Amino acid sequence: MAKVLIVYYSRTGNTEKMAELVGEGAREAGAEVVVKKVQEAEIADLQEADAIIFGSPTYYGHSAGILREFIDKSVVLHGKLTGKVGGAFASSHNLGGGNETTIRDLLDALLVHGMVIQGSVEGDHYGPVSVGSPDRKAETQCRSLGQRVARLAEKLPA
Amino acid sequence: MAKVLIVYYSRTGNTEKMAELVGEGAREAGAEVVVKKVQEAEIADLQEADAIIFGSPTYYGHSAGILREFIDKSVVLHGKLTGKVGGAFASSHNLGGGNETTIRDLLDALLVHGMVIQGSVEGDHYGPVSVGSPDRKAETQCRSLGQRVARLAEKLPA
Amino acid sequence: MAKVLIVYYSRTGNTEKMAELVGEGAREAGAEVVVKKVQEAEIADLQEADAIIFGSPTYYGHSAGILREFIDKSVVLHGKLTGKVGGAFASSHNLGGGNETTIRDLLDALLVHGMVIQGSVEGDHYGPVSVGSPDRKAETQCRSLGQRVARLAEKLPA
Amino acid sequence: MAKVLIVYYSRTGNTEKMAELVGEGAREAGAEVVVKKVQEAEIADLQEADAIIFGSPTYYGHSAGILREFIDKSVVLHGKLTGKVGGAFASSHNLGGGNETTIRDLLDALLVHGMVIQGSVEGDHYGPVSVGSPDRKAETQCRSLGQRVARLAEKLPA
Repeated sequence: MAKVLIVYYSRTGNTEKMAELVGEGAREAGAEVVVKKVQEAEIADLQEADAIIFGSPTYYGHSAGILREFIDKSVVLHGKLTGKVGGAFASSHNLGGGNETTIRDLLDALLVHGMVIQGSVEGDHYGPVSVGSPDRKAETQCRSLGQRVARLAEKLPA
Repeated sequence: MAKVLIVYYSRTGNTEKMAELVGEGAREAGAEVVVKKVQEAEIADLQEADAIIFGSPTYYGHSAGILREFIDKSVVLHGKLTGKVGGAFASSHNLGGGNETTIRDLLDALLVHGMVIQGSVEGDHYGPVSVGSPDRKAETQCRSLGQRVARLAEKLPA
Repeated sequence: MAKVLIVYYSRTGNTEKMAELVGEGAREAGAEVVVKKVQEAEIADLQEADAIIFGSPTYYGHSAGILREFIDKSVVLHGKLTGKVGGAFASSHNLGGGNETTIRDLLDALLVHGMVIQGSVEGDHYGPVSVGSPDRKAETQCRSLGQRVARLAEKLPA
Repeated sequence: MAKVLIVYYSRTGNTEKMAELVGEGAREAGAEVVVKKVQEAEIADLQEADAIIFGSPTYYGHSAGILREFIDKSVVLHGKLTGKVGGAFASSHNLGGGNETTIRDLLDALLVHGMVIQGSVEGDHYGPVSVGSPDRKAETQCRSLGQRVARLAEKLPA
């Protein structure tokens, strides 16, 4: 059973709803899921997980500084996350408001950690985005990310 | 009076509608506007314009190959477009479908040409995106890009 | 034995050398490797491979138009490449000349195809880059990409 | 005389050296220059400047969290920086180590603030990058950015 860790920052609650939906998707695919606010997560949590998913609102086109600070601190694990599975999601106020650049910012961090990521042929190709509170489409995309990551982590045991 | 050139590729007509709206915005701001399909544009057209705006549908996260081929050929003008004003817009099938990565791909090309670009504090920050046929929001964003580019080109005569 | 396909465009020969080095790395890791110029590749080749690696020079910050045209045509296989492994490499004239934006452009295309990519904790995190003809560092990075992709493809049979 | 503000984060001193070189370039072009560590900068400083340049080391492919936290706080000035000139620079440990993605992350923030940025036809197209301590090439690129930004700010008074 793959262990999936979801670490997110949320101020208004939109990204938090997405985190829960991604978690539901991962559970549906058979994973053991832990969902944590970045303020409550510890760097050591990253090493225990088989898969790590980051979520953030879009602040000036990228992920929240508080989440990047957490990622910066993960340098103590550099080389120890290689081969784990990763994913990312983002909320924003507007279509075209930077949600894709936020997701790719988070995916870049996962790649620098030597992690494995997968896109999707349908919908939100890089990871789920929500404009404001997640609507039905965003819900489907969030669950789909959780399932995708859980299934890939199952095939790639740490 | 600033000369604004809009070069776009469109297969379904969505990007073409955006091109016309961007052109209307630029005209409203007092510019002389030429709107051309990439198949009919010539590299020399780029040198005559004070401002250049590229538009494309989103194909696999980026601009259409036919538009990139045109940009590749613009290397004969390398160094001669420095200081001109630029902008970009994109259409896609989905929210989260790659429209932002497409716009930034086009903005990158303008930056490598030494051109000047401006973002927007409202709405589509990097440039207008449309999911499918442009709705009222996309229309506003397209006009706004045209105006922004025309006004900046007025201040920065070639 | 994983089948790794490398499709590249090269004008000056630098990207071609990188393609050969990536291929050697993949063979060292036990893969069956095919290296093809984009002009000689067919879309059907993509479906037969377990892993696909794209390589390009950096033209205006992104991959060559001729390679993007090939990728655009791959839409006929949309949904059929899901779960395959991917990778990318790029050459450029300068450090800071757009090689990273070129690699991420190609990685985006692979993600939109639902493919799986892996970064690296050492050296060129997103994929190998070469400034001019590949030096020893670039050689190491190219072989490393080939090995990484071949090993991941072995674990994720199509 | 244009006022150019340079805000940077530096841990090892490499980015600090770049900040000073960018500042020298801006002074050579006639600007009044203030160079500040992000820890000592205040959000109000941004409003007083005609041009703002951000610099950061590359941490996991993007700018340091501490700099993004500063940018996040700049939301209190949203809409008030429109039309100011911007620029960015980055240091990294490796070629291919994420310096371009770091610069574009910072440029994105400037675009979301409605600011104006200019690329370069020579060398580091998006902004200067340094692998380790700035060498002669990086020095030239840093001065060039300072000059470019100062000259553009002169033409675009706030």
